[in-house]
Parts: sequence; structure tokens; C-alpha cells
Amino acid sequence: MKIRVINGPNLNLLDQRESSHYGGFSYRQLENMIREEALKLNVNVEVFQSNNENELIELLHSAENVCDGILLNPAGYGHSSVALRDAIASLKTPVLEVHLSNLHQREKFRQRTVTSPACTGQISGLREVSYFAGLYALKKIIEKKSS
Amino acid sequence: MKIRVINGPNLNLLDQRESSHYGGFSYRQLENMIREEALKLNVNVEVFQSNNENELIELLHSAENVCDGILLNPAGYGHSSVALRDAIASLKTPVLEVHLSNLHQREKFRQRTVTSPACTGQISGLREVSYFAGLYALKKIIEKKSS
Amino acid sequence: MKIRVINGPNLNLLDQRESSHYGGFSYRQLENMIREEALKLNVNVEVFQSNNENELIELLHSAENVCDGILLNPAGYGHSSVALRDAIASLKTPVLEVHLSNLHQREKFRQRTVTSPACTGQISGLREVSYFAGLYALKKIIEKKSS
Amino acid sequence: MKIRVINGPNLNLLDQRESSHYGGFSYRQLENMIREEALKLNVNVEVFQSNNENELIELLHSAENVCDGILLNPAGYGHSSVALRDAIASLKTPVLEVHLSNLHQREKFRQRTVTSPACTGQISGLREVSYFAGLYALKKIIEKKSS
Amino acid sequence: MKIRVINGPNLNLLDQRESSHYGGFSYRQLENMIREEALKLNVNVEVFQSNNENELIELLHSAENVCDGILLNPAGYGHSSVALRDAIASLKTPVLEVHLSNLHQREKFRQRTVTSPACTGQISGLREVSYFAGLYALKKIIEKKSS
Amino acid sequence: MKIRVINGPNLNLLDQRESSHYGGFSYRQLENMIREEALKLNVNVEVFQSNNENELIELLHSAENVCDGILLNPAGYGHSSVALRDAIASLKTPVLEVHLSNLHQREKFRQRTVTSPACTGQISGLREVSYFAGLYALKKIIEKKSS
Amino acid sequence: MKIRVINGPNLNLLDQRESSHYGGFSYRQLENMIREEALKLNVNVEVFQSNNENELIELLHSAENVCDGILLNPAGYGHSSVALRDAIASLKTPVLEVHLSNLHQREKFRQRTVTSPACTGQISGLREVSYFAGLYALKKIIEKKSS
Amino acid sequence: MKIRVINGPNLNLLDQRESSHYGGFSYRQLENMIREEALKLNVNVEVFQSNNENELIELLHSAENVCDGILLNPAGYGHSSVALRDAIASLKTPVLEVHLSNLHQREKFRQRTVTSPACTGQISGLREVSYFAGLYALKKIIEKKSS
Amino acid sequence: MKIRVINGPNLNLLDQRESSHYGGFSYRQLENMIREEALKLNVNVEVFQSNNENELIELLHSAENVCDGILLNPAGYGHSSVALRDAIASLKTPVLEVHLSNLHQREKFRQRTVTSPACTGQISGLREVSYFAGLYALKKIIEKKSS
Amino acid sequence: MKIRVINGPNLNLLDQRESSHYGGFSYRQLENMIREEALKLNVNVEVFQSNNENELIELLHSAENVCDGILLNPAGYGHSSVALRDAIASLKTPVLEVHLSNLHQREKFRQRTVTSPACTGQISGLREVSYFAGLYALKKIIEKKSS
Amino acid sequence: MKIRVINGPNLNLLDQRESSHYGGFSYRQLENMIREEALKLNVNVEVFQSNNENELIELLHSAENVCDGILLNPAGYGHSSVALRDAIASLKTPVLEVHLSNLHQREKFRQRTVTSPACTGQISGLREVSYFAGLYALKKIIEKKSS
Amino acid sequence: MKIRVINGPNLNLLDQRESSHYGGFSYRQLENMIREEALKLNVNVEVFQSNNENELIELLHSAENVCDGILLNPAGYGHSSVALRDAIASLKTPVLEVHLSNLHQREKFRQRTVTSPACTGQISGLREVSYFAGLYALKKIIEKKSS
Repeated sequence: MKIRVINGPNLNLLDQRESSHYGGFSYRQLENMIREEALKLNVNVEVFQSNNENELIELLHSAENVCDGILLNPAGYGHSSVALRDAIASLKTPVLEVHLSNLHQREKFRQRTVTSPACTGQISGLREVSYFAGLYALKKIIEKKSS
Repeated sequence: MKIRVINGPNLNLLDQRESSHYGGFSYRQLENMIREEALKLNVNVEVFQSNNENELIELLHSAENVCDGILLNPAGYGHSSVALRDAIASLKTPVLEVHLSNLHQREKFRQRTVTSPACTGQISGLREVSYFAGLYALKKIIEKKSS
Repeated sequence: MKIRVINGPNLNLLDQRESSHYGGFSYRQLENMIREEALKLNVNVEVFQSNNENELIELLHSAENVCDGILLNPAGYGHSSVALRDAIASLKTPVLEVHLSNLHQREKFRQRTVTSPACTGQISGLREVSYFAGLYALKKIIEKKSS
Repeated sequence: MKIRVINGPNLNLLDQRESSHYGGFSYRQLENMIREEALKLNVNVEVFQSNNENELIELLHSAENVCDGILLNPAGYGHSSVALRDAIASLKTPVLEVHLSNLHQREKFRQRTVTSPACTGQISGLREVSYFAGLYALKKIIEKKSS
Repeated sequence: MKIRVINGPNLNLLDQRESSHYGGFSYRQLENMIREEALKLNVNVEVFQSNNENELIELLHSAENVCDGILLNPAGYGHSSVALRDAIASLKTPVLEVHLSNLHQREKFRQRTVTSPACTGQISGLREVSYFAGLYALKKIIEKKSS
Repeated sequence: MKIRVINGPNLNLLDQRESSHYGGFSYRQLENMIREEALKLNVNVEVFQSNNENELIELLHSAENVCDGILLNPAGYGHSSVALRDAIASLKTPVLEVHLSNLHQREKFRQRTVTSPACTGQISGLREVSYFAGLYALKKIIEKKSS
Repeated sequence: MKIRVINGPNLNLLDQRESSHYGGFSYRQLENMIREEALKLNVNVEVFQSNNENELIELLHSAENVCDGILLNPAGYGHSSVALRDAIASLKTPVLEVHLSNLHQREKFRQRTVTSPACTGQISGLREVSYFAGLYALKKIIEKKSS
Repeated sequence: MKIRVINGPNLNLLDQRESSHYGGFSYRQLENMIREEALKLNVNVEVFQSNNENELIELLHSAENVCDGILLNPAGYGHSSVALRDAIASLKTPVLEVHLSNLHQREKFRQRTVTSPACTGQISGLREVSYFAGLYALKKIIEKKSS
Repeated sequence: MKIRVINGPNLNLLDQRESSHYGGFSYRQLENMIREEALKLNVNVEVFQSNNENELIELLHSAENVCDGILLNPAGYGHSSVALRDAIASLKTPVLEVHLSNLHQREKFRQRTVTSPACTGQISGLREVSYFAGLYALKKIIEKKSS
Repeated sequence: MKIRVINGPNLNLLDQRESSHYGGFSYRQLENMIREEALKLNVNVEVFQSNNENELIELLHSAENVCDGILLNPAGYGHSSVALRDAIASLKTPVLEVHLSNLHQREKFRQRTVTSPACTGQISGLREVSYFAGLYALKKIIEKKSS
Repeated sequence: MKIRVINGPNLNLLDQRESSHYGGFSYRQLENMIREEALKLNVNVEVFQSNNENELIELLHSAENVCDGILLNPAGYGHSSVALRDAIASLKTPVLEVHLSNLHQREKFRQRTVTSPACTGQISGLREVSYFAGLYALKKIIEKKSS
Repeated sequence: MKIRVINGPNLNLLDQRESSHYGGFSYRQLENMIREEALKLNVNVEVFQSNNENELIELLHSAENVCDGILLNPAGYGHSSVALRDAIASLKTPVLEVHLSNLHQREKFRQRTVTSPACTGQISGLREVSYFAGLYALKKIIEKKSS
């Protein structure tokens, strides 16, 4: 079982961003925690981060038929990019949207993501645990599909 | 470790509601699946369902100091009840909001819940897996707090 | 043929409310007029009134497979209760919404009811005649279904 | 007792329009069903259909002092025509608005009719039964007025 | 000097409409008062009333090169008819919009007229005096243009 | 002179809620302060708290002809409950709305209460003093009515 | 017969403002044209201009029982000043609002004046002729009242 | 192959309207250009213009089973007429909406047409070329359907 | 203990304004009632009224360090004046906003005051009793601060 | 004559997207159909597709002085990209916007494109025929310009 | 070269206002810093502060032909005063708007100033440096004009 | 002291864009003017322009710890890019937003930039002088920080 984890813009600067929302760890630490969790869950992961909308779209397109599921943190592009949304909608692979922070406790424009209706579901607000629960859930969904 | 699972109005009629959104199983089946998952995760659960806003508030109030975490599916009350939101906000116990359906694919009034900013986080759109991932995440959050 | 008539909050104080909107009669008188009309139409009615959102939901749930149709005046809950709406939507029994007053001549927040899209239809503005026409219509609809 | 039934634009093509909303019968069939119902209720009806806003206004103006009540399906003009609304408001004859479909289940712009506040009441969503209940209700209202 | 006075829908029923807004006189009386005022001001008037949007458009089109000014009370069509607005905008003859009632004291939808930006100016709220002042103003405007 | 003080949902957990908005005292302390103030003002009070919308409605209905005035803190239900509003509107007894916090300094949805237009007046933002001033004002209003 | 003409802020710089909206003449010229017109109509006028909201309010207050009518160009204060509106509303003397420009052809915020509902009526868009027609109309209204 | 071209209100005064939006030619010239283009494309056209909403509806209704396609410039009625929209929606004949001007460069109310969702597609902004491309496209669509 | 009472624009014409909202007494009578109440409460008051926004700001600025509390009825300026709001916000002296009428029963633009978030609290709807309760509350708040 | 055809994000996955909106053919097939049509119309085309906003901007910039016209399907970027709009606006070469689907039949956010006001015109809803008619129209526009 | 610096309401209490937004210095200090900067830049300044809207308007009017540029901090009046905006718009002297705080980080109503479109430009968010950069910019603009 | 100047999309085509908003000079000329000004102010500048959102984000990220301040003209991306905003917010280096044109005099969507709240401040409307004043202000801010 193979899951692609895709992280959007500015997550590379995670430890410079508001710790009350983002948890106070670095991107390197987040990536490590994801890999450890995947190991525990016996799931094969590839983890990407890009500040480039186009690269994110290509990472989605190229996952089709290669991965069994996608964990996507669209970050800032989730609030504006119809292109990203259409990329998700054109895949058969399940895409699960995750957010570190609870978007509903933040600025108004963060409370809506245009990508949400195109995804299978969302997990938000649980810091690194959003990713752990995301991997756990994707695994269950993939097992259900293939059973 | 003890987790209270609270289900809001009309979930008792789950198998009569739109299967494309709710998965097509009965409330009894959902409850059983939650209990089985809890067993696997080695978590103690109590599962409630009520169509009564007041009872839901009392179930939240009485969990304080008794449970380590709460999994709440506020159903219809999540879209209108400020009273429910204030009940969540007055607890120290973490409350995780779950939804069976992807609210962002449905009517406009379902795309906002007044309870969201008061909860620790949200999981939605994954049918019964929303509850499984919810239990898994709550366990991680409780372990982190107590460590 | 059996029809359940369900009246929502504050209708018990009907004669204390604005007579230009509500007709100036008491709830007791309304109930009697409904029973007389049912007798004329040869329809079996049970008439309920409750100020309790939860009781209204239970009255809807318990009508399934017991009644042939439901006449519902959701009163104030019609403007805010998604829980009531979902209760209606989960029934197969036809539900006809009635209002004594013409909601479109009143405050802006009364001009929309969240229950309307879940009901078969609406009758409003005709004072007690809203109920008479409601019984008459429900009878026709039930006869059509069973023919 | 004489009732004028006025049908607005495009109802002449009824059987070409979405059957899930309009019932699947032709305008000719609708007119016949209305006449049969009127006969049963012992009411004298004249039934008109026009695609012309001006003609609809004139049919309202000329009903004053000639008819005891009006059943109006404004169709598309109900959503935009202040002129039609003012025509209704300038009459003493009661006007009851009817709609075949449940407007609240349709496009946003259909959920509001500018004519509603000027009418005595509304019946909607019951297909042909909206007209039957409308005739029944108007008869009751006229009898009450003249008693 | 020739001025065309054009009155829109339902003004023929003027004395049946709310006297607090419309002054309590009949259309016949209004027309006579306009003619008397025109006589005093030494202006040639032709006065029309129509409930027909198309006729109002034609009355505007045909005034070009025939009249020196137009006094238009668009009534209900002023709130919805872009067609009427475009008809005004395509004329070189000055068009002055008049209203009997003070639209700003009435329903929200009456507080905006789509015809206003296409007219030279507006006079409203003065009952029959809106027309008198309108004739007086148009005369001044025409004299200024031709001087 | 008898005044009923009615407190809405979650006020029983007052000392667990944000002290910057609610003052930092417990519900028990609030109730005692209200009773002491009533004693000073020589007013007979009965003080209730309920998390149940239905009970709040019944407490309003049953006050009619029994109490001379009502002091109501609708808490969360004030922002959504049309049923509560209609209950207030159907009473002749004066109802004065009080709030501990200054709603205008808080979330947008708290800045509007649907109950306000049905009440005689509002006092907000003064912590426990909102209740003291409320009792003082109600006493004056009742004396004025009975003089 | 005595009419007070009150001009609001920045009208003293009339010839420096956009001539397409304001006509291209100076305030001195406007004042002279108003006086000449008053002479022709045999009306006694006093003409004021102030950039001071407070002075405008005092000019309205002090006109009561001294003048028979008021012609008010509120200029910029018409779009924001509730104080000015309340001043107008507290007078028995008729107040007619005039504007040089057609507000409906300008910025969105100019298309609404808070003073309009408090005035007897409005004349706008006719440059200096707005004032001439205003004097003419006020004279007619005063004669009607005193007859 | 037969195509009906239907032009809405005020297009008969085309050369009097803003040339920057409408191209500066007369309606007679537009009609000739359409006929010439049809000749080149070997398509049979009938071209109508009407200022009458009712006539436009009748021209749509009567085209069914008579024409293979319709080119409709709804002009001003496109922005307000639900009746026109419903007329289009009740046809099986493809209807292609055309506009001379680029509506998105104009007033806000012109940027939405209620007829658009009922049409097959739209062509706008290309002056007379909107019609040429419209005929060309309709021809392709009709050929595709019949192949 | 010294309290400054500041009354905003048009309150000097109190007895000319709508008695259903304002109580039907004159400003002189209101001022006397305030002084009598202050005497009973053993509070030193100075009472001002001004139609001048600037004077109101200066009355707020100059109260700092001179008075123990301020009772402010901003009247019309409360709905538009950010300057007044900022003046309140820059004081340490507690400012209590009072209104004679229940703003929530009036025009939409009166239901929001920009000054509210800057004040300690609000009392509204109780006619002259708003001021009595305001003095009573301010006294309690000042005593609490100094204890 | 040389025309550049530029296709935006996700069009490379055309055959995986909703066939009811997009026609059910692959991007390769679309490109071939465009080339065949260009051949028939005797027009030189270059066809590009990119998921990269920056590349689309560069393709627009570099077309100036090289191509005679541009056919642009901005896809998802058309709904959010002001940068794309400004790129179009800074060219002298005519840009014609095309869409495969009828945007007005889809989600609300698709009904507005920020690029529309900067383009010469739009063609939408005709599947591959949108491109054919676009080439046909551009050819006519270019011929007109150069004549 | 002469520049008039005009400061609006409540800036005289600068050191009592939120230091995170306003920098924590007094108005006297601000004025001194402005004078020192002007000296360095070899610019002649006159610095005014007023809490009076009328005085601000007069300070703008009287600067024409006397000063070469105006630096205006409209403070609270910038959010509501159309009169101030019109005063700016009627001057030929360039007016540069400055704000101490970054308005975009504050309450929603502060994020829009009605004066902005009438000014040459804006500088905001830089505390006292907003004024320094303002003087520097105005000097450059004046030199450019006179060269 | 080192300042990075970053220019967003389409600024490379500056001389092709509306000269009334952008000043009529080329990007090459703007860059030269910035360098000359920097020389005068004794500031070290590096000037970039990119049409690529990703590159702009990288230029911001890489400036941290390398530059003392950033002058950013986000151009079109300022109106839509949450990613750009988050990039600014994650830096400690002060970022000053500059715009050539006065955004408040332009289309509605240009009047808001999502980047503004994340920047230290904004300078807009002064053509090339926006950059000069921006450099001058940044220099002062950096000197203040380091003192």
C-alpha cells in the first residue's frame, strides 16, 4: 500500500509560523513524524513539499495509478486555487485533505477551501495528529475498496 | 482511557437517510462498528444518541472529569445551536467533531457549523471511518497530554 | 386513513398573539375546527401541540408506518431547526407544512423556513383554512398514492 | 360562486417541462382536472392561460366585482414582476397563489416571489392538488366573508 | 413645446391603491390635473397610461423627434425592466422620471429603479405635485437647450 | 412585587467560562448576588437556570399573571431561537433582556439576538451589575404601570 | 410665503467640482439664480450654505414656525448623517431634498441618502433646475396645506 | 437547415445606442449582414426583432419542430425575464444566446443573464461577428445531432 | 461621586419626535427626571445636550480625571461616528451607552451602533428608566472599582 | 494568419473529467479536432496546454507581435487569477475566451471569470464547437482589422 | 515649498490609545518629529489637529493656492465622511493620506476609507515613519509638477 | 543596508499598460529610477521581477537573514494569493507593500489585497514615487530597529 503525502506552500518554514496554530515544530520534524507513523501503520509513504501550484497539480496528476491514496495539505492554495480543485476532481485515487490548524478559529478567508468538495474528506485542527489520523483513515478506506 | 461518543438528532434513522451521504448502514451497525474499533484500539467507549438538544448539552457537561475525550457528531444541531457551542467551549476535556458525510458537497447551510471553532478539530466525509480515525486521533491527543 | 397534525411552539398561546396574523382564536378553538373538518372529510386525525423541539422530532419519527400523512406547523422551529428538517427528510410518509399567517408579509427571518425543501408542499396565509385545505390536499395525495 | 383561474407563461407547454417538478401531464389535462374538481365542489370556474404579462394584469383588473376569488399561478412572472404584484394589491377580491412545484427545492431565484406578500396566501408543491386545495380553500374563504 | 406624459402599470386603478402613498385621487383626476397644469404653463401635453411594458417602450421610441420632452412614471416596471431602461437610454429627448410616492419610505425593492440612471433626473414623493414640478422643470430644460 | 429571573444554557458552568467576558464568579455566587440585591430593593425574586429551550419557554409562559416582570438572560438561545422570541412576544408581562458580557465586543454571531425586538429593553456588558440594574429598572417600570 | 434654502458641504466650491455632474457654475451664480427664480415665483427665500453638520441641524431646527418650507441639498452629509435625518424627521415644516447631479449615475455610495425617507420628496439630476422645480413644488405644497 | 434569429428589445434603435458597445451600425445593416452570412454558410434564416416579451416567448414556442436551431439575443429581457428562461428550457431545439457587447465590461446588472443556464451556450462581445460565429456554431451542432 | 450625562443630536426636540419610541416627554422634563433620580441616588450629575459631534467629543475628552463615570446617549451619531467611538476608547473613565428606544424594533441602520464595542455596556428601550438604571449601574461600577 | 490556442490547467486529463460538461473526448482528440478545423479555415495554429499559471502568462506575453489572435481557455485560473487578466489586458492582440462547458449551469464560483472583462469576447457551452466557432470568429475579426 | 499637515479626531490623545497600533508616543511628540523631519527635508510645514469635521474641511479648502501639498490623517472621519472626501476632490493641491496604523490588521470598518479614492495616494502602517515618508513623497511630487 | 525590491506579474510590460494608472514609463525605466534613488539614499538594492507566483515566494523566503528589508509590489497576485501572504507572515524581515496606482480608484476586486495584513505597511498611488518613499521609509524603519 502506497500513500503520497503532498504539502503546499510555506510549510517548509513551519517553525517560523505562529506556534499556537501550527504546533511549533519544523517541517523536517513533521516529515519525520509522518514517516515514523507510516512505519507503525505498515504503509509505504512518499512525502513532498512544494511552494509551486503547478508542481502540486503535477504531483496529483502523476499519483494516479501509482499510489493508493493521497494525503493533501493544500495550505494557502486551498483557499484560492480552482485549478488544484479540478486536479483533485479528475483523479480516481482517494484524496484526503488535512490541515494542522483548526481553520474555523482563524481569519474568515481561511474558513472556506475550494478544494474541500473535491476531496473524499477532511481532517483539521489536530496539529501532527491530523496527519497520523489521515494515514490511519486512508489505510482503512483503501482496504475497504480493495476488499 | 475513556472516550464518550455523542451522536445528535436523526442518527437513529441512519439507514433511512440518503445512502450516498451516510453510507447505507443502520445506527445499530454504526454503534457496533465504533465498539469494535474501540476494542482494537484498547479504548473504553460509551456511545450515546439523542434527538434532544438539552440532553446533548448535559452529556457534554457531565463528561468533564469523567472522560478523557469526547467524539461529537452534532448532526443538525451543529448548524444552529450556539448553546451546544458554548457547552463545548466551557469544557477542558478535548472534543473532536465528526461527520459521516462531506459537508462541503451538500447544501450551503450545512457547510458551516457553529460548533467547529469551539472543538479541538474536525473529521468529516469518511462515513464510519470518520469515527475510527476520530478514536485513533483522540487516543493520540490524550496520550500526548498525559505524557 | 389516518393523519397526524403536529403544532409547534407557542401555538398554545394562540389567542394572545397578533390577531392580524393569527386570526384571533384560541388553540382550543383551532383544534376543534380541525377535528370538525376531519370529520366532514371522513379522515381520522390525531392533533398534537408541543413547545419542545425534541418532542416534535419524536412525533415525526413515530408517525412512520402508523399514519398516512402528516400536517406540520413547525412555528418558530421552522426558521432555525435543521434537526427538524432532517427528521422530515428521513420519513417516507408525506409531510405537508402549514402556516396560519402569510409569512411573506412579516419579518425577513420568517420568510424562509429550513423545513420547506424537505416537505412535500406548503400552505400558508389562510388562517384556519390553511389546515382545512391541508387535510383536503393530504387526503387527495394519499388516495393518489394508494391507487 | 365564481372563481377565475389564471395561469402564467409557459404553462401551455407543461408536458414538455421537467416532470419531476411539474407532474408530467399536459396543460389540457390540467385544465380538465381543474374543471372536474370545480364541478365536484360546486364552484363556477373560468380558466385562462397567457404568456403575456399585460394580459395577466388585465385578467386581474377585470376580475374585480365579477369574480368572488382568484387562483393565480404567476409562473415565471412571479419572480420578477412588480407590476403583477401591484395589480394584485389593488384588488379587493381575494387572490390565492398556487404553484405546481415545491419552489424551495429548486433554483435560488425561484425561492422568492414578489407577488407573495400581495396575495392572501400560497399553496405550492402538490402538483395538480395545489389547484384542488386552492379551489377548496378559496370556497371556504369566500363563504366565511359572505357569512 | 410638446411634452409626452407616460404612465405605467396599475395607475389606472389609482384610487384603489394605498391613499397614504398615492394621494387618494383617481387616474381620471390625475390626468385632468396634469392637463390643467400644462395649460397654465402653456405647454402642449399628450397623456398616456398603459399596463403593457411593450407599449411603454413603443411610446418612448415614437416620441423621438416628435416631442421636446418626456415625463415618465414607470411604476412597477421601473423596478425590473432593463428593456425600459435601454429604451430611455437610446433617446436624445430628455426623459424625467416621476413618482407619486416617496419610494424611500416603502419596501426595499421599491427603493431602487433600474430606469433612474438612464433618465435626466427624478422627482418623487410629492403626489400630483411631482407631475406639476416635472412639467415645470422639463419646460425650463427644453428652453435652456433651445437657447 | 414579584420578578422571575430566568437564566439560559451553560450559565451553570459560569466559572469555567472566559472570565474576561463573564466576570470570573460561579453561578451559585451570581444567584446569591441577585437575591441580596432583590432584598435591598424590596423585590420578591424567583431565580431559575435551565439548559433546556423548552423549559425556558414554559418558564416564560407560566410567568404570565403570576409575576410582575421577567429578567431574562437567554444566553446561547438568544442567537437562534425564534421559538423563544415568540414566547416573549405572546406575554403581556414586561420582559427585560440581560447579558453579562458586552456582546458587541465578541464574535459576529453574538452581536444579534433574535429575542431583542420582542423584549421591552436590554442591559448588557456590566457583569453582575447587568442583573442589579435590571431589577432596579423592572421595579421602576412596574411601579409606573401600576400607578 | 417664506422658504429656507439650505446647502450642505463643499457647495461653496461648486465651480471647482466635476462640471459634468454639477453644471459648471459657481456657488455665487447658483445663489443668484435661486433668488431670481424666487422673485419670479413671488416667494420669499433665505439661502444658506455651510460645511458644518451642526450648523445644518441648527438651520433646520430654527426654521420650524419661522418658514413655510425648506429646500435642502444635504450634499455629502446626506449619505452618512443619521443626525441630519432625525433633525428633518422632528420638524412639521415640509422638507424637500434637492440634488444638482443624478445620484444614480454616480458612485454606489451616493445612490442612497439616509435623509430621503425623512423628507417629503426628492428632486435630483436637473442641475440648477432642481432648485427651480423645488421652489415651484414647495409653493404648491404650502398652498395646498393652507387651503 | 433552418435557423430562427430572434432579437430582443431596443435593437431596432441600434445605431442610436453607444457605439463603443454596439458597433455603430443600424438594425437594418445588422439584419443584412446576418442574411449574407447565412447565404455563405448555406443556411436558411428567418430574422425577427421585437420589443415585446410575449412575442419573444411565442417566437420561441412556435420554433419547436419548425426550426433546427435558434439564435437568441434576449437584450434587456435576458437580465430579468424568468418567463423567457422557462420558454427556452421547455424546447428541445438548441438555443444559442448571442450578445453584441462584452457584458462583463458593463454595468453589474448586465453581467448576469437569467437565460444563460437554459441555453446551450453563449457568444458575446464580438459585435456582428457574435452572430456570424453563432450561425457557424449552430450549423455544426445541428449537423452533429443529425449525424 | 460625579457623573457626566451627555445627550446627542436632536434630543432637544424630544417631544416633537415619535412618542411610541421616545416616551412623549420634552427634553426639559427628561433633564429634570435625571436630576431628581441622581438626588435620590446621592450622585452628583452634570447634564449636557449638543447637536455638535465635535462638542460631544470634547465633552468626552474633558471628562477624563474630572468625572467618575459617563452616561452617553449618542443618538444619531452612534450609528455613523467612528470619531466618537475612538474618543470613548481613549478614555479610562467608564462610559455607559443609553438609548430611550429599543433600537432592535426600529429601522435596520439603527440596530447597529459603532460606539457599542468601545463602551462598558448598554441600556436601551426603557424610555427615561434607561437613564435611571444607567445612573444606578454606573454608581455600582464606580463603587466596585474604588473598593 | 496565425492564431495561438492556449489551454489551461487539467485539460490534459479531459477524458477523466465529467463527460456531461466536457464532452467525453481526450485532450489529444480535442487538439486534433482544433487542427483539422484550422486547416479547413485556412488558418495557421499553434496549440498549447499548461497546468502552470506562469507559463500561461508567458504564452500570452510572447504572442504579441507574433500572432494575429489568441484563443484562450483559462480553465480553473480564469476564476481566480488577476495576474492572467492583467496579462491579457496588456496585449494589443485580440484574445477570445472559450469554455467547453456552459459555466452558467455549474457551481456558483464558476459563473464568474476575472479574465472576461479583459478579453474581446467569450464563447462557452458548445464543447469542441466552442473552439471551432472561436477560430471562425477570430479569423473574421482579424480580417476586419486588417481591412 | 509649503506643506500643510492636517490631523483628525482623537489624535490629541495619542498616548492614551493602543500602543500596538499607534506607537506609544504623545501628539506633542509626533508634532515635534514631523517638524524635525521637515527641517531635514528643507520643507516648510504647518501642522494642525482638530476633532471637528467642519474645521478639517475648512483647513482643506483654505490650503488651495496657499500650500503646495497636503498630508492628511483623517482618523475616524476617513471611515464615514463623504463631506471630507468631496472637500479633497474639489482641490487641485495634491493630498496624500497617511495612517499611523496598518488599517488592514484592524476592525473591518477601518479597512475602507471613503477618502482614499479622492486622494493622490496613501501611506499606512509605519507609525511616525508614515509621516516622514509622506513628506518625502509629497516633496518629490511637487518638484515633479513644477519641473 | 540591503533592500530587496520584488516586482510581481506583468510589470515587465509596464509601458503597455494604462498610463493613467501606471505612469507611462517602461519597466527598464522604473528599475533605473529605483537604482538611482537607492544610490542617493545610500542603500544597497537588488531588484527582481517575476510573473511566477512560486518564484515570488522563493524570493521572499530567501531574503530572510540576507536582506534588511523588502519592498514588494505583488501586482495581480496581491488580490488572490494566500500563499504569498503566508510567505510574508513567516518572515521576520520587514516587508513594505507598494503599488504604482491608487487601487481605491480602480475595479472593486483591486481594492482589497490579501497580502496587506501580513505586511508592515503600504504605500500606493504615487507612481514611481511609491518606490522612492518606500525605500526612504524602509531605511528609517531598519535604522530604528538597529538602534
